[in-house]
Amino acid sequence: MKYPNTILNLIECFKRLPGIGEKTAERLALSILDIDNETIDIFSSSLKDSKTKIRRCVKCNNLSEEELCEICKDKNRNNEILCVVEEPKNVIQFEKLNIYDGYYHVLDGLISPIDGINPEDINISNIIDRVKEDNIKEIILALKPSIEGETTSLYISKILEKLNVKISKIAYGIPIGAEIDYVDSLTLEMALENRMDITTNKDS
Amino acid sequence: MKYPNTILNLIECFKRLPGIGEKTAERLALSILDIDNETIDIFSSSLKDSKTKIRRCVKCNNLSEEELCEICKDKNRNNEILCVVEEPKNVIQFEKLNIYDGYYHVLDGLISPIDGINPEDINISNIIDRVKEDNIKEIILALKPSIEGETTSLYISKILEKLNVKISKIAYGIPIGAEIDYVDSLTLEMALENRMDITTNKDS
Repeated sequence: MKYPNTILNLIECFKRLPGIGEKTAERLALSILDIDNETIDIFSSSLKDSKTKIRRCVKCNNLSEEELCEICKDKNRNNEILCVVEEPKNVIQFEKLNIYDGYYHVLDGLISPIDGINPEDINISNIIDRVKEDNIKEIILALKPSIEGETTSLYISKILEKLNVKISKIAYGIPIGAEIDYVDSLTLEMALENRMDITTNKDS
Repeated sequence: MKYPNTILNLIECFKRLPGIGEKTAERLALSILDIDNETIDIFSSSLKDSKTKIRRCVKCNNLSEEELCEICKDKNRNNEILCVVEEPKNVIQFEKLNIYDGYYHVLDGLISPIDGINPEDINISNIIDRVKEDNIKEIILALKPSIEGETTSLYISKILEKLNVKISKIAYGIPIGAEIDYVDSLTLEMALENRMDITTNKDS
């Protein structure tokens, strides 16, 4: 005896999602039986739509349902800054802050030679074209502080060094609210290295 | 700026599943974009099938795609025993053991007056009919050791007491491999109460 095929299929599909193991997949598949018809219809059709409607913005590579994403279509943003992020999710994170009004450039991941991911695989070359064509004054690299993130940041700053553009990197350091004794040593090292001068009477 | 509608819909749908919060729903919705078309098709259609194909077995209330579930259709099982479980998932758990070959009776949950769940809501009355019609000799109550489980077990044994049927309950006690000092006191109390005589020379 096993579950009916429909349930077995659902279990297999849930298992394909990241972080979902056998037990959780089983629990989720069974929970589908208790969900109302309307939600199931939306769920089912959204899954299909994810393959047909969702595409990448031709300009910034963000997720979009049209040729240009909502941000690239918006002409009221600051067109002199470009924030480079690893994936579409990061765009949402920055947008939620409501303090950045430039445009974005979404990579397809980070350079990782060990995984066979090279610069040409992650949509980097477009950045040069955008800097030249769109008159970008500053590139903000907002990649995560890992070997891959640092390698990618370094690579991007290298290929842009001949162009007249300021390149900055978001600050790495101790997160707000953290206890210093719980912060890992690499973060602490970064925080020390990137320390800021806060002398009040600099001229004296 | 927010995600395209398809992604927002997926996030909302994932959030409807048990144990999935905002962050996880977002991660799962985005991960859908990386899954192959074939899996997405199966996922999408299985969701729809869960509402149209999956039904309850008319005899035992187990999940089924036909009028009778696979177990009830099987004539080679021991038709004198009926194992009463809380939900379809439990049937699979018992079947995996490969040591029980009787039939099942699947309840729709457990009696819980505090949540407004009464005996008539959970498919109990059918048990009496089955005991009478199917010549059942033993009812095994395999419900969880909670207030609700105990109440339900007690209720079922009460309504069956006039019928000539043996009623047993699965053993509650210390799980195999557990350290006694980590076991909660209620379990230990149960284990003590349900202690078994293992005297080897009983007659001496």
